[in-house]
Amino acid sequence: MFDQLGVIGCGLMGGSFALAMKRAGLVKRVVGYSKSPSTTQRALQMGVIDVEAPSALLAVSGADIVIVAVPVGAMPATFKAIRHLVSPRTLFIDVGSTKQDVASAATEILGRNAGCFVPCHPIAGSERSGVSAARADLFVGKRVIVTPTEQTDAKHLERALALWRGLGCTVSTMTPKAHDEAYAAVSHLPHLIAFAYMKGLLGQENPEGLLNLAGTGFADFTRIAASEPKVWRDVLLANKADVIEQARHFQRALHQLEVMLNTDDGAGLQKEITEASTARGKWKPKA
Amino acid sequence: MFDQLGVIGCGLMGGSFALAMKRAGLVKRVVGYSKSPSTTQRALQMGVIDVEAPSALLAVSGADIVIVAVPVGAMPATFKAIRHLVSPRTLFIDVGSTKQDVASAATEILGRNAGCFVPCHPIAGSERSGVSAARADLFVGKRVIVTPTEQTDAKHLERALALWRGLGCTVSTMTPKAHDEAYAAVSHLPHLIAFAYMKGLLGQENPEGLLNLAGTGFADFTRIAASEPKVWRDVLLANKADVIEQARHFQRALHQLEVMLNTDDGAGLQKEITEASTARGKWKPKA
Repeated sequence: MFDQLGVIGCGLMGGSFALAMKRAGLVKRVVGYSKSPSTTQRALQMGVIDVEAPSALLAVSGADIVIVAVPVGAMPATFKAIRHLVSPRTLFIDVGSTKQDVASAATEILGRNAGCFVPCHPIAGSERSGVSAARADLFVGKRVIVTPTEQTDAKHLERALALWRGLGCTVSTMTPKAHDEAYAAVSHLPHLIAFAYMKGLLGQENPEGLLNLAGTGFADFTRIAASEPKVWRDVLLANKADVIEQARHFQRALHQLEVMLNTDDGAGLQKEITEASTARGKWKPKA
Repeated sequence: MFDQLGVIGCGLMGGSFALAMKRAGLVKRVVGYSKSPSTTQRALQMGVIDVEAPSALLAVSGADIVIVAVPVGAMPATFKAIRHLVSPRTLFIDVGSTKQDVASAATEILGRNAGCFVPCHPIAGSERSGVSAARADLFVGKRVIVTPTEQTDAKHLERALALWRGLGCTVSTMTPKAHDEAYAAVSHLPHLIAFAYMKGLLGQENPEGLLNLAGTGFADFTRIAASEPKVWRDVLLANKADVIEQARHFQRALHQLEVMLNTDDGAGLQKEITEASTARGKWKPKA
């Protein structure tokens, strides 16, 4: 149980976290800050936060838990803005989709207080964004990857794990590096592909005509292409080496299928598609 | 209203069509044939068909409407098998995802009786397949593209349009060529990409470990990769020129995003992602 939660970035993730903490009875009061005043206003109106903070630093003041829920590219500036009020008694977490960049920024900027920062990544995205899309149940039944560093304080780590479990999540821990490699494969590359696919359509004659003909397969395949641009710009840049390596695996496989098409290799094509289809047919989300 | 429906290929599409026709009161009796006897058995047990036909030819015998619901690569052989019982009074339709190949095979093989064949493509796919996945409401609220040829008889065309409308579908007509070009963009390429993406994952060390970490974005993005391999082998081969041209559009867009990643061009990346995200955010399925 916490007394005061400071939310820095009252969007989909920060807002949903505040609502979830309140619903679970894990926090008494929520103080929120967003770069855009209209977001904070809306968060107040929706009951996501109880008090508006005029700065990130003041959202930290008096808090015993702080969530930093800004695009990963904005993490270093946020850490710099709040470092003078970061104390070893307060638990700091984030919800960014990349972890090496966030963890090393925290280590570097928070210095001797870096132990209170526990890097977290809830696998609970949505193509919707902004505080209006915030939901108290966004994290229920979802997995959260926690990536402690060598600096991370063991007691704060335990508190973070217990907290996510208290919100109905399944928690796994891994290193920031292992996290970023794996999520380049199963999340970041799919986003990059979906954005590129949409851009490839939009660059053609009469894209509206094409879009009008699309059905449910297209709907699902492209859902992630509607994700928040700033969030994904930052994720892709922060993890670009792993993402580009994953893109190589994909391009090799695509090239192989194209060669089979060009040579009318029906047997080869069927074998490849069967392997893909069987693996995907067996797959189930693990929470 | 029809007296007897002949179903050639009692899988997801053929089976769902039979169930839908029965539920709409548009047919009295359904005779079905499938290459695999266990499929026909299951179709009988499920009440999808009333009578089992021992051959494609005998599924046509006595029918006033016939649906050919086999992978598009099997259409020519099917047309050859049934051509001696194709009469100008019977309406023949198919449900293949490509139309130029099917329409020209019908024209060539059915000869002077080709007028009774109306090429159709219901935009109602599913990653599930087989008669067990058949549903009477698969086509309700969905769009059906009908692609008449120069040979198509006007009366049969009208009957086909009325039929799909009677099943709750919205019907559009276009040429087989326009159909194949558009669906290469909005359906065939997404399938090719999804298969290649899965293959790219499976070719790595410990793909199980990666798959265990995947979440809802992955789930939606790869849903179509679980599609029926033979159906999609045939679609991709039948429409390979258009599919490969669409793959070029996609690869150019992907390459552009990769260049932006490599050069840390955050502004460019944000612009591209915003265009993709805005277009996908506005998109709604049109039925």
